[in-house]
Amino acid sequence: MIRRGFQAVIRLGHHRVLPGAPHVLPRLNRTSAFGSSTDSLVSRFCLEKTDLKDYALPNASWCPDMLNLYQEFLEKTKTDGWIKLPSFKSNRDHIQGLKLPFGLAATSDKSDWRIFTRCLQVEGQGYEYVIFFHPSKKKSICLFQPGPYLEGAPGFAHGGSLAAMMDETFSKTAYLAGEGLFTLSLNIRFKNLIPVGSLAVLNVDVEKIEDQKLYMSCIAQSRDQQRVYAKSSGKEVLSLSPDSVLPPSPSGQMEGRILRIRSQTEVQLFRVGMGTCCRL
Amino acid sequence: MIRRGFQAVIRLGHHRVLPGAPHVLPRLNRTSAFGSSTDSLVSRFCLEKTDLKDYALPNASWCPDMLNLYQEFLEKTKTDGWIKLPSFKSNRDHIQGLKLPFGLAATSDKSDWRIFTRCLQVEGQGYEYVIFFHPSKKKSICLFQPGPYLEGAPGFAHGGSLAAMMDETFSKTAYLAGEGLFTLSLNIRFKNLIPVGSLAVLNVDVEKIEDQKLYMSCIAQSRDQQRVYAKSSGKEVLSLSPDSVLPPSPSGQMEGRILRIRSQTEVQLFRVGMGTCCRL
Repeated sequence: MIRRGFQAVIRLGHHRVLPGAPHVLPRLNRTSAFGSSTDSLVSRFCLEKTDLKDYALPNASWCPDMLNLYQEFLEKTKTDGWIKLPSFKSNRDHIQGLKLPFGLAATSDKSDWRIFTRCLQVEGQGYEYVIFFHPSKKKSICLFQPGPYLEGAPGFAHGGSLAAMMDETFSKTAYLAGEGLFTLSLNIRFKNLIPVGSLAVLNVDVEKIEDQKLYMSCIAQSRDQQRVYAKSSGKEVLSLSPDSVLPPSPSGQMEGRILRIRSQTEVQLFRVGMGTCCRL
Repeated sequence: MIRRGFQAVIRLGHHRVLPGAPHVLPRLNRTSAFGSSTDSLVSRFCLEKTDLKDYALPNASWCPDMLNLYQEFLEKTKTDGWIKLPSFKSNRDHIQGLKLPFGLAATSDKSDWRIFTRCLQVEGQGYEYVIFFHPSKKKSICLFQPGPYLEGAPGFAHGGSLAAMMDETFSKTAYLAGEGLFTLSLNIRFKNLIPVGSLAVLNVDVEKIEDQKLYMSCIAQSRDQQRVYAKSSGKEVLSLSPDSVLPPSPSGQMEGRILRIRSQTEVQLFRVGMGTCCRL
């Protein structure tokens, strides 16, 4: 697992480097920013042919609100530029569709890993969700229905389950909108509790991309928008540059390498390997 | 489930009302604040005799760091005032040990509910954690070992799983330290990724209790404190006053009742029932 951890981080930090200059997306016209690169990321992320199970498809546990809004957005994928993101059981599966840097091969891994938000396998028991992403608008909609295994106060979703759902939606949005890699911060203000089994709609917007960081906001509310469950903001650091990786150590081992993230104002150093990835 | 949700919230808001005046805990001597009431809460929370399974006990999946630190803190429960909190599969079980207001009986519920942080039942697969609480110091230590089903980036815990662990530790700490009920905000700065299967130690401090809110901080780090995984702060609203519940509606239904939370500077209104709990 030690080397696997490192390789995975490298794999995520694949081949494209964002321009160093800050990119503030205009509030009223965000359609032009990073259009083509985002399209390329999306096409690699959304594999057309795969044997992997997509967990972001309707099942018998979905409530009517969730089903209806899913169908509504599915229509918008045909006419309005929205894209339904697949959701596999592990990020390792998502990574398989991406081009790897440095000629690294994707290591096969027979262990049973799961992305946290797909940790429960029984339909309706845990996380039911689907994310739609709009490449040119740089925004996402996540339809989220918490099951009875996500409980906090009796009958209501645990605040932490919503926090994780927000983090996951931020993460996928940031990756597709600007190769966001690591969540740096997550700030949530909870307003109301989400009843277990009901729909919460998470609206995520990329507010700006600046200084090698991507800033996002989220509002989670009921379908009719009459009840706000929570508001949040998140910040993600952007892609690791492959040419910023220092040469291998004399021993040839992978551990202990340094990754530099360069921006206009600073250089951040990460040491990866030995099963860790830590900022220096 | 509709009435259940309401009743549970009422149950949580049991019989004691904190003084209205703000209580800022002195940084160097926090041992006196709320001593006796906290002791009473702790004794009701930590049932001496129960058939419920306690999930906060060592199992074969625990790494040596986690086992060793668990034993260390277990010794401190005998000599240094620390208390090991039990951890049942649902908050509904925790609530059973508490005195209920208004003569409400605890409704039996045969459905399969789980607190989010105990959603996975296979040892080592998901959350492994144990919380120790120090009543007079108003602080908690949570030993947290994320399993392979809590993954984000390959080999590392999902940021959302740590966010949920922080929220849960805040929640239990806030309840025992001052009858904290609802998380109002959660702000996290992520520093480093936690390798799956390793130990993260969460140190939670109650910073102050002021204006009917409880402010907490958390630092999550490796056992040797050489690597900080994340820092966070949280704010919880304190106990609902039972006598602030408005009379039942003419229909006699539980839904739609208003709960008032009174403080020196404001009154916050919550409408509970209809499967929801929302701030007005």
